Amino acid sequence: MNLQTLKGFRDFLPNEARKRQYVIDSLKELFTLYGFEPLETPVLEYQEILTGKYGDEGEKLMYKFLDNGDRKVAMRYDQTVPLARVAAQYQNDIIFPFKRYQIQNVWRAENTQKGRYREFLQVDVDTIGSNSLLTDAEIIKLAIDSYMKLGFKEIKLLINDRNVFSELGKNNFEPSKLPAVIRAIDKLEKIGEKNVSIELSEQIGKESAKRVLDQIKNQKPTKLIKEIFEYLDKMGVPSNTYEFSPTLARGLDYYTGSIFEIKCDQYLAGSLGGGGRYDKLVGLFSKKDIPAVGFAFGFDRTMEAMNELNLFPKSLDKTRLLITNTSSRSPKIAAEIRNLGINSDLYIENKSLDKQLKYANKKNYQFVLIVNDDTLILKNMIEGKQENISLEKLPNVLS
Amino acid sequence: MNLQTLKGFRDFLPNEARKRQYVIDSLKELFTLYGFEPLETPVLEYQEILTGKYGDEGEKLMYKFLDNGDRKVAMRYDQTVPLARVAAQYQNDIIFPFKRYQIQNVWRAENTQKGRYREFLQVDVDTIGSNSLLTDAEIIKLAIDSYMKLGFKEIKLLINDRNVFSELGKNNFEPSKLPAVIRAIDKLEKIGEKNVSIELSEQIGKESAKRVLDQIKNQKPTKLIKEIFEYLDKMGVPSNTYEFSPTLARGLDYYTGSIFEIKCDQYLAGSLGGGGRYDKLVGLFSKKDIPAVGFAFGFDRTMEAMNELNLFPKSLDKTRLLITNTSSRSPKIAAEIRNLGINSDLYIENKSLDKQLKYANKKNYQFVLIVNDDTLILKNMIEGKQENISLEKLPNVLS
Repeated sequence: MNLQTLKGFRDFLPNEARKRQYVIDSLKELFTLYGFEPLETPVLEYQEILTGKYGDEGEKLMYKFLDNGDRKVAMRYDQTVPLARVAAQYQNDIIFPFKRYQIQNVWRAENTQKGRYREFLQVDVDTIGSNSLLTDAEIIKLAIDSYMKLGFKEIKLLINDRNVFSELGKNNFEPSKLPAVIRAIDKLEKIGEKNVSIELSEQIGKESAKRVLDQIKNQKPTKLIKEIFEYLDKMGVPSNTYEFSPTLARGLDYYTGSIFEIKCDQYLAGSLGGGGRYDKLVGLFSKKDIPAVGFAFGFDRTMEAMNELNLFPKSLDKTRLLITNTSSRSPKIAAEIRNLGINSDLYIENKSLDKQLKYANKKNYQFVLIVNDDTLILKNMIEGKQENISLEKLPNVLS
Repeated sequence: MNLQTLKGFRDFLPNEARKRQYVIDSLKELFTLYGFEPLETPVLEYQEILTGKYGDEGEKLMYKFLDNGDRKVAMRYDQTVPLARVAAQYQNDIIFPFKRYQIQNVWRAENTQKGRYREFLQVDVDTIGSNSLLTDAEIIKLAIDSYMKLGFKEIKLLINDRNVFSELGKNNFEPSKLPAVIRAIDKLEKIGEKNVSIELSEQIGKESAKRVLDQIKNQKPTKLIKEIFEYLDKMGVPSNTYEFSPTLARGLDYYTGSIFEIKCDQYLAGSLGGGGRYDKLVGLFSKKDIPAVGFAFGFDRTMEAMNELNLFPKSLDKTRLLITNTSSRSPKIAAEIRNLGINSDLYIENKSLDKQLKYANKKNYQFVLIVNDDTLILKNMIEGKQENISLEKLPNVLS
């Protein structure tokens, strides 16, 4: 038997699990500061809830199967369609505008050779039920604050108005070509103007392609963008953390207003997250439109950037102390130390002190409390020093 | 289209999600106090990793399917077999003894009419890699502490020694009958001695059944139990929180030493959690035995008991303040209040103050800050009082 996980699926051993937890906890704290509330939905949904919502690509990548009762089921593919279901199903219980965050895994049978995972965490904040541009501004500020809280410097949130692209069409090309035009423009930064021009020409002809590109480059901030900028200014968001970007397009079809993406100058592998307004999607199952603005953190990419830029605290293991099992009173001492609220690991095997110190070393514990029958010795594993100590003094020394 | 979740699957709206998070956070804090470390494994595993480990019943209830690449995959059924895989796969990375906790969902196609869920959270703590009975004692203390931390009173942990049952067999019945005998004894509390006696008689004859039952009732604590009790005593565990129970059997086949279950006198629907020593299971994929002791919290039952016994704090919503959107400076005030670290919801629609107060009421916010162009008024929604206030004084009033 092969002892392995499926490709695209990962185990998280303690050090990695703690890093993930650190980012999740930091973000949750901020979401709560802004009054956002948690939502959880099931991993499995009736297939009919999810199918037809993610295009051909989504259909292909979705994990679908028949359950033991021959029901057609599918695994969560994103958190937006379940939010739409929840918004309709509990419309009398939910208080609108509803500010919710959701932090759960999703599954997509992606090509793993592109460094993509098939099971990955999504971290989403969305406000549903309001047309006010203050909603857009609040989500944008929350996104910027999040990355700053995680320690990112020189981040920049690019903003554009999706309506600009509908305007582009006038006299330039058939309305049906709009999605293809948007997808081409979305590649400007990645493949450059020349290649985008070729791609556009194939879609709408050379003349129109030129006009479209010119128009985009000369585009000024729209009224919508200006109003959001006014809010951001009022909210004290530093003006060097956001910027109007007429070439930002965002690939997805469903945006209807502001669109935004966050980048970090020191991390060039791609944007760290993005979002925008999408007023037609959440009302999908309800019998009315439910306006919505959301931001999705690219969790794995954010983790990768934080690793590269050394943004994690030195030790995330909140346990820094090993209590040796070298006296019959070791269990008692351990209980007393835990009663003091000091995180500690009690060595549970009956081994030599030497072996116990080696264990402490491997676990990177900063302190070892050597328990003798009538003394306690605190050893600082980093400085190599040791001293007699009393239980009473321990909290001070360890704090 | 039916807007619903699959039966046995649940959505958790904010109030419920916060309750779950409260229990999870409380337990994680305690696990960390004891030096236990987090582990995460994927939802999907190769089927061959999971099959043949859970008996016929497990095989029937497991979610199995072919993925898009025609691999036989299965959804996580418990957290113990994945732990066994991890212990083998990363045996050079893991530092033994390994104290780990794992808090993830599992999926079982249970009969939902029995009030069972098909997607439910498991909360497991296990120490693997040590034969020392100190391990058993530490896990038992951690379990008792957990329920006390959650506010349970009059809890009782029942302990027994699984080896007693092997002894029972001597001269009484065929060794192959042992699992059936254990399962019968396990029902003593539920169906009473008379019915168990009938069931036992059918398995091993009337004579043997009588001898077995007598022997159990007269069983004294074994050396193993006595040693664990000594540790518990040393660790200061109140002696009225645990008790030797010769009739405790635990249904599962894989226990090899101590077995325990925790109950609460005020909640009679069943045990809140249980565990024991199982030295043969974790080494499944490794080429050696890996001794193990674990405790599994019955998460849904614990939640139910906490609801019934009113053990949740009055409000788990850490946001208690609404800032009204009644002045052009509302967004600025909101930003400043959040900079002070005060959790707050900013009303984002342009509606009448009356509508905004109604929203605050529905959300059960304790305070509303009414923002005027030149004054701030803090309204206490519970006491109905309101007063002019300055931003500087807000932290004191809200704390």
